[in-house]
Amino acid sequence: MKAYDTLDQLTAPQRVAIIGASDNPTRIGGRPISYMLNHGYTGQIFPVNPKNETIQGLPAYARIGDIPEEIDFALIAVKSTMVADQVRAAAMKGARTALIFSSGFAEMDDSGRALQEELVQIGQETGIRILGPNCLGLFNAQSCFFPTFTATIDRAKPEVGGVGIASQSGAYGSHIYMACHLRGLGINHWVTTGNEADIEVAEVIKLMANDESVHTILAYVESVKNGALMIEALEAARANRKPVIVTKVGQSEIGAMAAASHTASLAGEDKIYDAIFRQYGAFRVSSTEEMTDLALAAKPRIYPAGKKVGLVTISGGAGILMADAADALGLDVAPMPKESQEELKEIVPFASPVNPVDVTAQFFNDLSLVPRFTRAMLDKGGYDGLVGFWTSVAGSPVLGEPLLAYLTETMASYDDRLFLHVMLAEEDMHRKYQDNGFPTFSDPSRAMVALNAMMFFGKSFAAKDTDSPPALPKPVQLKPAMNEQETKAALASFGLPVVEDVTCLSEADVRQGFGRAGGAVAMKILSADILHKTDIGGVMLNLRSEEEAVLAYQQILENARKYAPEAKIDGVMLSPMIGDGVDLIVGAQTDPIFGAMVMVGIGGIHAELLKDVTFMRAPISPSAARSMLERLKLYPLLTGARGAKSCDIEEVARTISDFSAFVAAHEDQLASFEINPLRAMADGCVALDALAVCKVAGE
Amino acid sequence: MKAYDTLDQLTAPQRVAIIGASDNPTRIGGRPISYMLNHGYTGQIFPVNPKNETIQGLPAYARIGDIPEEIDFALIAVKSTMVADQVRAAAMKGARTALIFSSGFAEMDDSGRALQEELVQIGQETGIRILGPNCLGLFNAQSCFFPTFTATIDRAKPEVGGVGIASQSGAYGSHIYMACHLRGLGINHWVTTGNEADIEVAEVIKLMANDESVHTILAYVESVKNGALMIEALEAARANRKPVIVTKVGQSEIGAMAAASHTASLAGEDKIYDAIFRQYGAFRVSSTEEMTDLALAAKPRIYPAGKKVGLVTISGGAGILMADAADALGLDVAPMPKESQEELKEIVPFASPVNPVDVTAQFFNDLSLVPRFTRAMLDKGGYDGLVGFWTSVAGSPVLGEPLLAYLTETMASYDDRLFLHVMLAEEDMHRKYQDNGFPTFSDPSRAMVALNAMMFFGKSFAAKDTDSPPALPKPVQLKPAMNEQETKAALASFGLPVVEDVTCLSEADVRQGFGRAGGAVAMKILSADILHKTDIGGVMLNLRSEEEAVLAYQQILENARKYAPEAKIDGVMLSPMIGDGVDLIVGAQTDPIFGAMVMVGIGGIHAELLKDVTFMRAPISPSAARSMLERLKLYPLLTGARGAKSCDIEEVARTISDFSAFVAAHEDQLASFEINPLRAMADGCVALDALAVCKVAGE
Repeated sequence: MKAYDTLDQLTAPQRVAIIGASDNPTRIGGRPISYMLNHGYTGQIFPVNPKNETIQGLPAYARIGDIPEEIDFALIAVKSTMVADQVRAAAMKGARTALIFSSGFAEMDDSGRALQEELVQIGQETGIRILGPNCLGLFNAQSCFFPTFTATIDRAKPEVGGVGIASQSGAYGSHIYMACHLRGLGINHWVTTGNEADIEVAEVIKLMANDESVHTILAYVESVKNGALMIEALEAARANRKPVIVTKVGQSEIGAMAAASHTASLAGEDKIYDAIFRQYGAFRVSSTEEMTDLALAAKPRIYPAGKKVGLVTISGGAGILMADAADALGLDVAPMPKESQEELKEIVPFASPVNPVDVTAQFFNDLSLVPRFTRAMLDKGGYDGLVGFWTSVAGSPVLGEPLLAYLTETMASYDDRLFLHVMLAEEDMHRKYQDNGFPTFSDPSRAMVALNAMMFFGKSFAAKDTDSPPALPKPVQLKPAMNEQETKAALASFGLPVVEDVTCLSEADVRQGFGRAGGAVAMKILSADILHKTDIGGVMLNLRSEEEAVLAYQQILENARKYAPEAKIDGVMLSPMIGDGVDLIVGAQTDPIFGAMVMVGIGGIHAELLKDVTFMRAPISPSAARSMLERLKLYPLLTGARGAKSCDIEEVARTISDFSAFVAAHEDQLASFEINPLRAMADGCVALDALAVCKVAGE
Repeated sequence: MKAYDTLDQLTAPQRVAIIGASDNPTRIGGRPISYMLNHGYTGQIFPVNPKNETIQGLPAYARIGDIPEEIDFALIAVKSTMVADQVRAAAMKGARTALIFSSGFAEMDDSGRALQEELVQIGQETGIRILGPNCLGLFNAQSCFFPTFTATIDRAKPEVGGVGIASQSGAYGSHIYMACHLRGLGINHWVTTGNEADIEVAEVIKLMANDESVHTILAYVESVKNGALMIEALEAARANRKPVIVTKVGQSEIGAMAAASHTASLAGEDKIYDAIFRQYGAFRVSSTEEMTDLALAAKPRIYPAGKKVGLVTISGGAGILMADAADALGLDVAPMPKESQEELKEIVPFASPVNPVDVTAQFFNDLSLVPRFTRAMLDKGGYDGLVGFWTSVAGSPVLGEPLLAYLTETMASYDDRLFLHVMLAEEDMHRKYQDNGFPTFSDPSRAMVALNAMMFFGKSFAAKDTDSPPALPKPVQLKPAMNEQETKAALASFGLPVVEDVTCLSEADVRQGFGRAGGAVAMKILSADILHKTDIGGVMLNLRSEEEAVLAYQQILENARKYAPEAKIDGVMLSPMIGDGVDLIVGAQTDPIFGAMVMVGIGGIHAELLKDVTFMRAPISPSAARSMLERLKLYPLLTGARGAKSCDIEEVARTISDFSAFVAAHEDQLASFEINPLRAMADGCVALDALAVCKVAGE
């Protein structure tokens, strides 16, 4: 199949065949024609239907082959069993894209799945791209191209604007469209992908990221098939400073089950998706409303890179509520400088000048207080973003417009600062503010969530990594079933710090090993067949004398014989006891969609119960590894909580980064790899145990 | 001051004096008169102003004393320094209530604080009740009584409805009023309390709870002064099955600072408020929008006691999103019974019949599918609440009304099930659904949050404690500074399980104690002056021989002499080592507002970092104690996570309950009391250490 170079190649064709066209403008095969005729499509439409001479006033053709010209787009709305032939015929006629409305494919049963496979085959043979099947279509509001049967177009004609929508679900995509429309957000491109036999949401995001007319991308995703493509798409959007706002459903078990039945594809691990979206700068939302809120906030295209929030209000109560909301989101509600507070107090003695800054009811007597206070906040307070609370006052015909005039004049000199407004007003007053570059909200908490998201994008767009991921080492062929010592040796050979140990095959080995260790030792069974050594009594710690060590050796071998009689035993490992520290679990798994993902958590049962772990796609830089550690709820354990010594976080981060390069280099061979624990100490860190699970052939 | 018996005594007076009345209907002293005249107030209004003969067409009086009749309400809008005299005069004229608009009191400075104190004094002397000062007033939409100067009344005339609003903040109270108004919610009573010199939000809630015209209470609280009154108020609302939806601001440090400057009163500990609201059945929200959403959902007055949610949708995507949202809220998205799934499949072969139930686009061809599917879900699925997703389809003139007719007919036979609907539609279509008993939302996630809250109320209204808190024991006089042994002895004397120990004053005592213990022992310094024994080397554990114990005795005394030279030493405690288990921290503190609060958490640094603790007001029943344990994130540690033995949760719960009775009985004497740890074992539990801090005289 031939990749598109531009979004227009998909959404702005000039010669379109409609196969299964209907004369009735309310039928599935009739709506697209009706929409295009009514909304001013300037390309050519060729209805195909053997039963009609003309369709909605246009000459109709019995077969695609009868169309007198080449076509570049075929819309197919016929029975599922007839679709393949039509796609072939469309390809023969030069069509670049076949959009398939028809259902009865992979979403239904095995025979449908076979039909869908055939479409993929045709695509590969002819190069034609396929959108769908089981798809509600797309539209391009600029070129008035409406190959869709969503009835939403009847209820709301799309207005041109900078938003692009890519949705796997057609009905929910329509819902997003309508929700945006009701908020005054113009949509340029709307593409639903249905069963995604070929084109998936990721590709649409990438095309939108590289299309000038799209400023903000809204995506609804049930599952990603091509992880690398999704990452490319998100990277393209970030490079072009376009926010990607994404709903990824199926995070609950029930949701995932429903997603599976809905799209006939398996929803991936939710934590992995979370990690990928965060890492590549997409903002994940959990409701349509939050999605439209963020799209509205993105309209001025101001993405503050800082987190300092100034709150200006005419209600002290609202100020407190907004401060609470900002704090909960991790924003910085920094106070005004002391001397500026004094200056504001001179203007309004009853004002609360700290931040939130309360203009008080004096506002009603003198609207010019707003620009004066705002300027002071921006000049002296240095806030990256502001939220103003005007409740129904801004909705008043007397006050709303003069306030807007003051705000517009003031903000003209601060084009890098985002100013959101909270007001209860008629829709047309909201639009006036929005048209002047001020996103408006009726609820203060929602405004704060939107500002936080714009600051997320600002930080993401501005991010210059101070360091890069290490270069991937040259991979080696790993032994499929490594015992602990071999696993640690593999780590060590790539420069990672592991505890030194010796394999004991006799009591003499134990005595010699104990003598060399020069202090207390730990002993562990060595066998590639025993994954959970503690459970079979295969681990004994803190052995302080040679005799204790010998007894432990005997006991461990006896336990292994007793509780794991089938296991091949390679000996007993002896290693020095390592000093106190904090135990981390540092793992990796090769995700079927996104490849090697590295995971970091605090070790032990508490972290396990709390699922206090965080993921990133490997390889990662030391500073990224550090940010992973900082995201852990239990991070303060590493920085010396309760008077303990702080751990060597720099060395831990470097080790995690090196580990990520190691696993990324071996992702073809590894299913998972776990250092558990990696002991973080005041001086350095060391892997005490490690477990590798290699892929079995064919996986 | 004389307590009100009914809300009407505050909000429906018949003879009202307006002191500082203005002829100008836009001035503070003019607005109330204008509102009452325009909106049909039938009582008598007596404007008081020495400068006018008439005011807004009414005869004016120079002084209150000149009014020819008794009055029952005085509205005061004069300079702060003149207010006290007016309140006195109003009391002389028989007024039950003085509402004070004027600012310049405790919110300003010390002199204002003194003026406010004087008002309280007058109230105590004369019995007159005071609303405010620094207050935006109140209104009663039923009796058209509008003693308020909020300009919001100009923008939106109140409609009568079942909602009551009690707000400490006037401006934010106006915002809540307006937000409700825009959602079609009628407000009967709106009361703002300002500085709360006398009447506080809690009292207003209580009056509303006992007023027939109010069905749903919305409250905005910055701080509670009278904790017992708030609890009485919430208990009254629960007894009368009225939801209380509350915003309590100031949970962040910045918010609390702003709250303090705003209301001149200290915001209490946020966790305590959370606990009180949950315990007494109020639902805490963090945004105005959530507040109005919940008020709307409460309109049908159906509060399902169960948690089973049925989802019916015409978009598979929306179904997944709703399932995720329901799951995140802890609701039960139970599947339809298998045989019912088959039945639905027979009706629509492509339908997804599990739950979410996807009617699919077949809906467009046959609206009667909705009642058929809905009945199946209610009869066979047994769902307590339903959410339907109809997106803009319900907003279509062709489909919206017939769908509503079907829904109304269907639900007539299920008056205990709540059915919320998600739709994008014009406001008048929303109203039609709402008037038929169907709360509507434009966002599926918000509908789910609202349903969850209604289920919270349902559970709270239905709750019959299976057990009661124990009777409070007869309190004893506690010694002000108890050492550990005395503290544990106090617990033991009230029947709580504590570890047995002996006080050693000599090595001979240690040897004798060790012999009796019959196994390993722990030793700890005994001194009321040393609160943190571990920090000074005052604790040694797991001493296995008599010699080890004697050495420990000497070392502990030496450490104490060295690191706490001022402390009075009562000896060294010796106790048997207790078996393995999970260590809990069980504490209590006497909150200045709400009295004795009991706290439960898992012990250790992890729980401390995670703030994994939960509070309730003491005393509590064993089942309430159990619910506290279950709320802990680390609760699985108690039930045998990772193959450990399950703890004796019944005994732990009984012990916490007994402890709560003990601290409640002594709340006058105790500032705080902490058992740390309470070791929970497979068989019973035992307090290993305890620390009491008594109140100092005058506290």
